[in-house]
Amino acid sequence: MTAAGPNSAIELVEVGPRDGLQNEPDIITTEDKLALINRMIDYGARRLEVASFVHPKRVPQMADAEDVIAGLPDREDVTYIGLTLNKRGVMRGLATREGGKRGIDQAGCVIVASDTFGQKNQGQTIAEGIEENRQMIRFAKAEGMRVQVMISAAFGCPFEGEVKPETVMQIAEEMAAEDPEEIALADTIGVGVPSQVTDLFGRLGDLLGGRIPMRCHFHDTRGTGIANSWAAYQAGVSVFDASLGGLGGCPFAPNATGNIATEDLIYMMERSGIETGIDLDAAITTNHWFGDKLNRKLPSLVARAA
Amino acid sequence: MTAAGPNSAIELVEVGPRDGLQNEPDIITTEDKLALINRMIDYGARRLEVASFVHPKRVPQMADAEDVIAGLPDREDVTYIGLTLNKRGVMRGLATREGGKRGIDQAGCVIVASDTFGQKNQGQTIAEGIEENRQMIRFAKAEGMRVQVMISAAFGCPFEGEVKPETVMQIAEEMAAEDPEEIALADTIGVGVPSQVTDLFGRLGDLLGGRIPMRCHFHDTRGTGIANSWAAYQAGVSVFDASLGGLGGCPFAPNATGNIATEDLIYMMERSGIETGIDLDAAITTNHWFGDKLNRKLPSLVARAA
Repeated sequence: MTAAGPNSAIELVEVGPRDGLQNEPDIITTEDKLALINRMIDYGARRLEVASFVHPKRVPQMADAEDVIAGLPDREDVTYIGLTLNKRGVMRGLATREGGKRGIDQAGCVIVASDTFGQKNQGQTIAEGIEENRQMIRFAKAEGMRVQVMISAAFGCPFEGEVKPETVMQIAEEMAAEDPEEIALADTIGVGVPSQVTDLFGRLGDLLGGRIPMRCHFHDTRGTGIANSWAAYQAGVSVFDASLGGLGGCPFAPNATGNIATEDLIYMMERSGIETGIDLDAAITTNHWFGDKLNRKLPSLVARAA
Repeated sequence: MTAAGPNSAIELVEVGPRDGLQNEPDIITTEDKLALINRMIDYGARRLEVASFVHPKRVPQMADAEDVIAGLPDREDVTYIGLTLNKRGVMRGLATREGGKRGIDQAGCVIVASDTFGQKNQGQTIAEGIEENRQMIRFAKAEGMRVQVMISAAFGCPFEGEVKPETVMQIAEEMAAEDPEEIALADTIGVGVPSQVTDLFGRLGDLLGGRIPMRCHFHDTRGTGIANSWAAYQAGVSVFDASLGGLGGCPFAPNATGNIATEDLIYMMERSGIETGIDLDAAITTNHWFGDKLNRKLPSLVARAA
């Protein structure tokens, strides 16, 4: 079968170690996180979201961010992302690189497309988020760190309901002016549908004009995550967030279940003739290994059918 | 939001009472089946697959087919489908209408696009299936019963692996010559991906030229069912099989899990501005009511998020 979209290959961003784990009620040890990350690299992941620089009281699961980063394999072919919600996060990210250490390769900036959700999640209105992220991007780049930016709650807000496409595009325009490595749209609470994906990424593609790559981040809360991924692929998105097994969720968004499962995304893409660089069988084996550690079956349907 | 495909409305075929239940290990009483069907009509289903005319030893759950049919509400605005796998099935379907009784409105013929699977499922090679279905369609129509036909395992076979699109189209061409009310393609074991859906329904649309409507039947075994539904919608499919809660599976296909969930399909369609005639809240209430009867949570993610 030949690829049915503009790209013959996509890039996976494996967000399991951060978005996938942050909602886990029991603390995963640093050792287990590193074992998981190493297995993810073994199955082909070349970009991974490994930690979040948030306050440990807010997200206890991420309290060992610096320890995880210190233990990462120093591979040139792998990019490590640390989530940065404010300037303090960027400072912590930069600190992981001090003294000639590998540290984090890329800061993952996040701006919420909703005043209410933004204030609850990171204490920022949209306007404040734009200003904070502008400064974060400039600061990180000045210090030699790569930066990408994600617009979260772009498909709907748990508190305000619908989010206007115009709001999302206004944020995207402000961020594009800072020339990040890519701009992502996130369906943080899993309310989006493919028609919306086609619309929003169509607008974003027009805005960016191929100058900045597009990335998508979907949650499967209402069963549309894989359908949204396909619509995003068709709209020209080349980078896809997913988490092993469909782990994940956001502790501050009601009813937000897991990210789309890496295995399910890869199955769909590979069977459509689109290269992903991921060894699906090895990912399924890792799913079963990690599911045993968590003592439950992970949501991925492909891994269950295997 | 405006519809992103050729149709501003779709038709749901609620297959929960047949495909949804046939795999349930515990026998559901005729009374409970009828209560379920009545609730489905209440939430807006206007076409329902209510029974299968198979041998009770093969599918014990369908042993009360005639009793269920005798108890159906006699509504003019509702169409009842009985699955017919051979001429004997059509005879049983016709018998439900004898003596002026309402009975079944439509025979659901099935032809498997795989010699091996066809022989295991209904004792027919593809060639035998074509001949049997031709006779079934002619016989049913001669007796005044409506007929539709489904090509199952069209996206892959549990025994033979890949199924050639040419094989599916050859069957479709033979069946189209008999002028059934619609032709469906079924992903019986849930291996299909959207690119395949676009390809197969594109070919079928070209073959049928709008003369005969297209219907799709997806299982969510590998997480692609909703994505496939959207691709089918975009390819011009106007009729969608789904089962309440995602109940279902095929006892004779290894690892075939449930149908796509009615709630998840409806959520995606309605949020995309496509009319379905279904009251989603009422469907979710029915899901919870029936899940309580089965003593487990049904797979639908929309119903879980509600």
